[in-house]
Amino acid sequence: MFESLATLLADAASQIVREGYDALGDVEGKADGSPVTAIDRAVELRLRDLVAEHAPDHGFIGEEFPPSHPEAEHVWIVDPVDGTRPFIAGMPTFGVLIALRHRQRGMVLGVVDQPLLRQRWVGVDGQGCTRNGEPVHVRPCASLGEAFASTSGPLAHSRALWPRMECVHKAAGRLIYGGECLAWGLLAQGRIDLVVDAGLQLYDVAGPLVVLREAGATVTDWSGRPLGGEFDGTVLAAGDARVHAEALELIQRGHVVNRP
Amino acid sequence: MFESLATLLADAASQIVREGYDALGDVEGKADGSPVTAIDRAVELRLRDLVAEHAPDHGFIGEEFPPSHPEAEHVWIVDPVDGTRPFIAGMPTFGVLIALRHRQRGMVLGVVDQPLLRQRWVGVDGQGCTRNGEPVHVRPCASLGEAFASTSGPLAHSRALWPRMECVHKAAGRLIYGGECLAWGLLAQGRIDLVVDAGLQLYDVAGPLVVLREAGATVTDWSGRPLGGEFDGTVLAAGDARVHAEALELIQRGHVVNRP
Repeated sequence: MFESLATLLADAASQIVREGYDALGDVEGKADGSPVTAIDRAVELRLRDLVAEHAPDHGFIGEEFPPSHPEAEHVWIVDPVDGTRPFIAGMPTFGVLIALRHRQRGMVLGVVDQPLLRQRWVGVDGQGCTRNGEPVHVRPCASLGEAFASTSGPLAHSRALWPRMECVHKAAGRLIYGGECLAWGLLAQGRIDLVVDAGLQLYDVAGPLVVLREAGATVTDWSGRPLGGEFDGTVLAAGDARVHAEALELIQRGHVVNRP
Repeated sequence: MFESLATLLADAASQIVREGYDALGDVEGKADGSPVTAIDRAVELRLRDLVAEHAPDHGFIGEEFPPSHPEAEHVWIVDPVDGTRPFIAGMPTFGVLIALRHRQRGMVLGVVDQPLLRQRWVGVDGQGCTRNGEPVHVRPCASLGEAFASTSGPLAHSRALWPRMECVHKAAGRLIYGGECLAWGLLAQGRIDLVVDAGLQLYDVAGPLVVLREAGATVTDWSGRPLGGEFDGTVLAAGDARVHAEALELIQRGHVVNRP
């Protein structure tokens, strides 16, 4: 199951991110305007090297560079620093996201790592989810009105969908903003109950998906479909299926805004 | 200047919060519906004891219990856990806020402590600001369009004022949500440029105010008045006076919503 390689990758990434946190290097603009740092790239290059060294037949898909061997039986899918924006701002809500995809079995391993907090959530297919090595699980929550929800906030990449998200937020018992990828871990360990987000890419959700699935969460897109094939960038993830059902109904009949 | 007492208080608070973080105790509802934990109270009681032991003539004003000797020459103003909501959710954006007020000289010492990150910002009147003992300072930023701003998000306590905040957010170069009290420290150390918030209480801003002032920030309410006397709960804090002036103009001519 390549858990030891996943640990090696996560350790290497986490260390580079921690070392770079205070002395943040060049911040360039990407074509889409999102910020990207030298650290992003350093992490991805290091992880590519490690995979090439320890599992030369594995493929690698990252955010910063073109894929290598994406047709391989095993492919690592990595977002070196998910949440570059909070990372640049110094907010410890960013994270390193790592997933391992098997050609037939789909996503079989996922890691969400927060370097500054030194917290790591790992999901392994059929073996459950751990946080820093200890088993964790989502918590029960009977209704959306009792749920603690997390959202990124009305950011540019998802602003058009914000009114639909807000239907859910307003119905949730409590809400935090800016949870970013830390929210996946908090949901997996039963500290919060619901994450609603949009505008995501495959590498933003591949690792968290396994973590959440193995922790017992219900995870779909906003149409109620499992994440996979044609991913539309929307995610609705709940620790309790009752909360998921309630949120799904709200978000589906929510005010739909025409995309510009 | 009682810096050693401030350190003693911050160390004690930070330790209680760290120990309680994983095994979060009872969550009760306060009359205003905001969540409050046993840890909040444990911190405040411990800090009251420490002040009584080390400076028996000092007063104490906290969030959870009635003031003691608020008329004293020196009064400690404490929010044991600012951001109880993120604390309960497990987000490391909450903090311990401590201030020392002198009857004639006003706020003379301020502490913002993030227990999980083990980061502490301390401002001492006329002596500058430190982060974990190292001097820090706000950074220059020529315009709002280049500024990295932080906001809590459209939360219940400030929702009526949200449209005016949004005028500023939309003009800012970049924005993070959910910065909570961690944002004060990030602003002081020149990692972000602007914090706009509302619905705050005196004990939410007393400590941060000294930290920010000593780090060189410009801090006023939304009318451009220094924080103090009749505090209306709004804060506009910028590392660079040019960003403050630009944001102030926007927020003043922003769409004004009638409070319900």
